[in-house]
Amino acid sequence: MPRYRLTLEYDGTGFVGWQRQKTGESVQAALETAIEKFCGERVRVTGAGRTDAGVHALGQVAHVDLKKAWPVKTVMNALNAHLRPLPIAVLAAETADDAFNARLSAKERTYLYRIVTRSAPLALARNRAWHVPQQLDGRAMHEAAQCLVGRHDFTTFRASLCQARSPVKTLDVLDVAQHADEIRVVAQARSFLHHQVRNMVGTLKLVGEGKWSADDVAAALQRRDRAAGGPTAPAEGLYLVGVRY
Amino acid sequence: MPRYRLTLEYDGTGFVGWQRQKTGESVQAALETAIEKFCGERVRVTGAGRTDAGVHALGQVAHVDLKKAWPVKTVMNALNAHLRPLPIAVLAAETADDAFNARLSAKERTYLYRIVTRSAPLALARNRAWHVPQQLDGRAMHEAAQCLVGRHDFTTFRASLCQARSPVKTLDVLDVAQHADEIRVVAQARSFLHHQVRNMVGTLKLVGEGKWSADDVAAALQRRDRAAGGPTAPAEGLYLVGVRY
Repeated sequence: MPRYRLTLEYDGTGFVGWQRQKTGESVQAALETAIEKFCGERVRVTGAGRTDAGVHALGQVAHVDLKKAWPVKTVMNALNAHLRPLPIAVLAAETADDAFNARLSAKERTYLYRIVTRSAPLALARNRAWHVPQQLDGRAMHEAAQCLVGRHDFTTFRASLCQARSPVKTLDVLDVAQHADEIRVVAQARSFLHHQVRNMVGTLKLVGEGKWSADDVAAALQRRDRAAGGPTAPAEGLYLVGVRY
Repeated sequence: MPRYRLTLEYDGTGFVGWQRQKTGESVQAALETAIEKFCGERVRVTGAGRTDAGVHALGQVAHVDLKKAWPVKTVMNALNAHLRPLPIAVLAAETADDAFNARLSAKERTYLYRIVTRSAPLALARNRAWHVPQQLDGRAMHEAAQCLVGRHDFTTFRASLCQARSPVKTLDVLDVAQHADEIRVVAQARSFLHHQVRNMVGTLKLVGEGKWSADDVAAALQRRDRAAGGPTAPAEGLYLVGVRY
């Protein structure tokens, strides 16, 4: 059975997240429905990142096996047609060999977290960024972020529902950049714990407000206790940017 | 009566445009309703640019006279509270002297037009950019745009409904920049004719596709005939970026 690799963009606002759930529409189920409409096959799609409700993707990657060897351009165009009017777009469709697994073969996942710091509410960036009504010190956030980079037990930043076997992960990049009233946090790792990026961002925001120092972040990491970390940043600021294999 | 100057951001998608109309909700009417809820006064707001249905603003400017001298921070926060949940945000409120008129005092208006060139439909930029499913030559578009810069009779790019007294305008800037699959057109002038930016962009797209040359654009301008210009680019790619006084 030919395997296809799909690259997806979506606005996560109206979805219960990537993963199929009984409580509402998931990106996964929407994609599986579009595939069934296209070729009549009821299949299961595997995604690289199980984005939460409200989390967006600029480059989610998924794989799926179909019985027939379709031209990849046909797969892409047909799925885009059947996904309409949902805000999910198939940016690319490629053939992949049987060893390729969107989730297990991933070598690096990149996430972006957008914070807009201004007193006025968001209009154009509504549901697309975290609105923080006061200024934050982006440089202090970047410096504090560096103590999280590397191989650590990230229990402090792990959701209680996280199903990962081990809380030990290697964080390759955690960069904080500030341009005008927007702060962008870029996080890269082979894999992340559930809510890890949002929990790290929620903690760095305390640094940006001047409530926490970099040492406080390092100490929280050492505690290996979710209660020692900052609050979870909201879903709407998070984007799965891409996956490297 | 104290005069207030308001700077506004809005997502124009769900509105009939800036100007009050019987056919649906306008940004102007929404703002006037919020003002009435705030201070009980039924007033008329004057905007710098009468943006069409679906056109967005990053920095629309408006003025309004109120009976009372409110602290500007109170005006801003109260209007933002009363505008909720509409995607309109008051970014700034300032006092202005009586000579200030948001429309008539404007010295320069800046518009941005976003085109996304890719085969896949738009998910995150839906309603926020013009989706063009083929590649465009941004450099050729920029070169052709330069023959529109300066003082000209812009009848070729003027909507039939345009109410301006004269079709002669001075276009100060028309820059086309291409980054990856996005083309951004920036237009600056003291004032524009109705649909002028969208008509210029629709014409430049013909250049980007290789169907028209820069000479064809210059010849169309000389014709002073709307039928000689390219089609009108859709509203959703257009943003009123800001107004200089």
